[in-house]
Amino acid sequence: MTLELSEKANEKAVESLANVKQTVPLVHCITNRVTITDCANGILACGAAPIMAEDVREVEDITSISQALVLNIGTLMPLQIEAMLKAGKKAKQLGIPVILDPVGAGATRLRDEVSKQIIDEVKPDIIRGNMSEIRALYGFAGHTKGVEAAASDAVTLQNAVDAAVIVKEMAEKFDCIIGATGEADILSDGKTTYFVGNGHPMLCKITGSGCVLSALTGVYAGAVGEKSKENLLHATVAAFVLSGLAGEYAYAEVEKMKAGTGTFHTKYMDALNLIDTEDMKQNAKIYVNED
Amino acid sequence: MTLELSEKANEKAVESLANVKQTVPLVHCITNRVTITDCANGILACGAAPIMAEDVREVEDITSISQALVLNIGTLMPLQIEAMLKAGKKAKQLGIPVILDPVGAGATRLRDEVSKQIIDEVKPDIIRGNMSEIRALYGFAGHTKGVEAAASDAVTLQNAVDAAVIVKEMAEKFDCIIGATGEADILSDGKTTYFVGNGHPMLCKITGSGCVLSALTGVYAGAVGEKSKENLLHATVAAFVLSGLAGEYAYAEVEKMKAGTGTFHTKYMDALNLIDTEDMKQNAKIYVNED
Amino acid sequence: MTLELSEKANEKAVESLANVKQTVPLVHCITNRVTITDCANGILACGAAPIMAEDVREVEDITSISQALVLNIGTLMPLQIEAMLKAGKKAKQLGIPVILDPVGAGATRLRDEVSKQIIDEVKPDIIRGNMSEIRALYGFAGHTKGVEAAASDAVTLQNAVDAAVIVKEMAEKFDCIIGATGEADILSDGKTTYFVGNGHPMLCKITGSGCVLSALTGVYAGAVGEKSKENLLHATVAAFVLSGLAGEYAYAEVEKMKAGTGTFHTKYMDALNLIDTEDMKQNAKIYVNED
Repeated sequence: MTLELSEKANEKAVESLANVKQTVPLVHCITNRVTITDCANGILACGAAPIMAEDVREVEDITSISQALVLNIGTLMPLQIEAMLKAGKKAKQLGIPVILDPVGAGATRLRDEVSKQIIDEVKPDIIRGNMSEIRALYGFAGHTKGVEAAASDAVTLQNAVDAAVIVKEMAEKFDCIIGATGEADILSDGKTTYFVGNGHPMLCKITGSGCVLSALTGVYAGAVGEKSKENLLHATVAAFVLSGLAGEYAYAEVEKMKAGTGTFHTKYMDALNLIDTEDMKQNAKIYVNED
Repeated sequence: MTLELSEKANEKAVESLANVKQTVPLVHCITNRVTITDCANGILACGAAPIMAEDVREVEDITSISQALVLNIGTLMPLQIEAMLKAGKKAKQLGIPVILDPVGAGATRLRDEVSKQIIDEVKPDIIRGNMSEIRALYGFAGHTKGVEAAASDAVTLQNAVDAAVIVKEMAEKFDCIIGATGEADILSDGKTTYFVGNGHPMLCKITGSGCVLSALTGVYAGAVGEKSKENLLHATVAAFVLSGLAGEYAYAEVEKMKAGTGTFHTKYMDALNLIDTEDMKQNAKIYVNED
Repeated sequence: MTLELSEKANEKAVESLANVKQTVPLVHCITNRVTITDCANGILACGAAPIMAEDVREVEDITSISQALVLNIGTLMPLQIEAMLKAGKKAKQLGIPVILDPVGAGATRLRDEVSKQIIDEVKPDIIRGNMSEIRALYGFAGHTKGVEAAASDAVTLQNAVDAAVIVKEMAEKFDCIIGATGEADILSDGKTTYFVGNGHPMLCKITGSGCVLSALTGVYAGAVGEKSKENLLHATVAAFVLSGLAGEYAYAEVEKMKAGTGTFHTKYMDALNLIDTEDMKQNAKIYVNED
């Protein structure tokens, strides 16, 4: 069992980035109050357009003019859940991809229940979370400590293939794409599984890097022409690579300047804005398991 | 028909900036969740003081101690609309200028209705939006794509005079000042119309530059002594110039550093903080139509 | 009457910082919409973990897994108050320290009433506010202008000892630690009173520096082993020093770069991330009144 760089996935990721720049998808986010600004700025930085709206009286109208819908449960409020369900169902009716970010699943019963309800009633096309959240959705005893992945759930390129079993099973069970972030990211549509090795630990030292990644996943899914599972999986992989590369770039700047997480945040946004198809082609680390 | 630089407006803009620094107006914002932090920081950066409050039980108290009230409908919530109406009516009773930012008007029926209700019931002194939003308020078929101006509504210095007709008419109809942003900004009180040529396209690549401009308009209107329409128009023009100049300055820094939108955001705030009367005098591009 | 540097408090502050880095406390914030992102980033920057949650159906669960609870009334909403009371009572049951930031107390009756209700029903361990807010809680005629301290309430190292009388009395009356920020900060548990001389006026020119300080106070209180009043007082002093030093560091950078408040914000976060025990030992200015 060895992980090999996937040339095909690399090509598809480059294509995805080009698609985004060309189609400028509008992405509707119903998201948390902590990282809502970063999500909007991340979407703009990478070449798309954000719209945040959660009044139940308008969410369907907003979803209808959008190319993707991102549901993030990071700071739930009673009215927000209703808005998510309404917008989610409308999106599915119209064939607009729905991305769920189950922030903090495993930490409280409410988050588990709302995640389950969205999965059951909306059937999201893509679920993006850290490994603790993904495990919690699957019904494993929760390891979640707050909204960060528990240490016991840490995934590296070394143990990624084992951890991938659960991700693949979940993708099958929920009939969707699962993207789990960690030192190594694992993405599967239940058939094919990819591993992304880009990223930097400092991404966990600013709030919102996970939420922004979910928003970027919305952007990339929104730019997909024919919404087959395979195409959506490649788009998701591309979003993960973009965010990971941006983290690497930002950390290089921070190191050069002997700076800290404030500068990292600024440079991360810069990188989302500047990374082009050439960067992605050269630096993406997308693996498949060739056993 | 030619646009000429207006010396009078330049002088008035310089005077407005000095007024702000001297009076430090307190500006009450009932605003959206995406850009609320940027609005507060923008208000502080340019020398004033922000207060954000939207609990219906306190909005009138907050408005009463403020020098301006900014209503921004970017992320409507049921309770928020009630708070806007209450605060707006209190402000009008007390002669405190009210600024409306009809974010996304034209995109959903809810936004159109709420904008209309605020215009009818509160009668804002100033409306600040992009050209698509302004057209939507006027009842034109909506071109709005999300919260950005539609390409078909793009205003440049070349076609600004034609586009100004609608802005002037609206200012008359709604008996208020209208400030429409675009590559060229158009501002009118129904009698006099000014055009502002400052700004940079990268302002559209960070979230909040429009909302911050509305907040700055609140600051500048709040610093006006005698609240005549003419004085409020000049204050609004000054706020537009300040934001436009800050965009130009920020972009110059970004170019020098080969950076992206993250750095642009930081440098935009720096510029709002640093621009002084001398900068405004030298670099403001305020035109009148001398036909 | 003279203020003398306290060696003991310096040692304790250094110890507190080391504790935070070692224990990585999870801090539950129910906080305002303006500075929620900065609070999360500040908590992460200094080595801890944030969780923001305010749905009444989950706040007790979230508090139960946290090491501190921070209640900030900066943008009150009806449901939020209920969440604060519920979470606060749960925290007290479990011996988890509660920090109250009475933003804008004195500015509206609602803020005064909610502050009073939280103090009466929850009995916070630490109250962190500016001098105008602290005076308002004590029932003095309100000087509060918006959410900033009134000029008439300005505290400097010169008049700090007089101003300390009120802080000490309040700490006794409310049976908690009071930390009042100003040019000189005053902190008391009703027995011992400390003065912190670190800081920079530019901290008042970005939104959120007060709220972040309250969040950092949560971090430092959460890292305390035995929650005696003395230990909590020392932890609070350490949080004040950290934020003050970060302000000094950020301003030095701004001056060097001839930048403004945008850069200050970034560098402030950098500093929260970078300041270590050695910096604190060398540069903390913690005084006691040796009269």
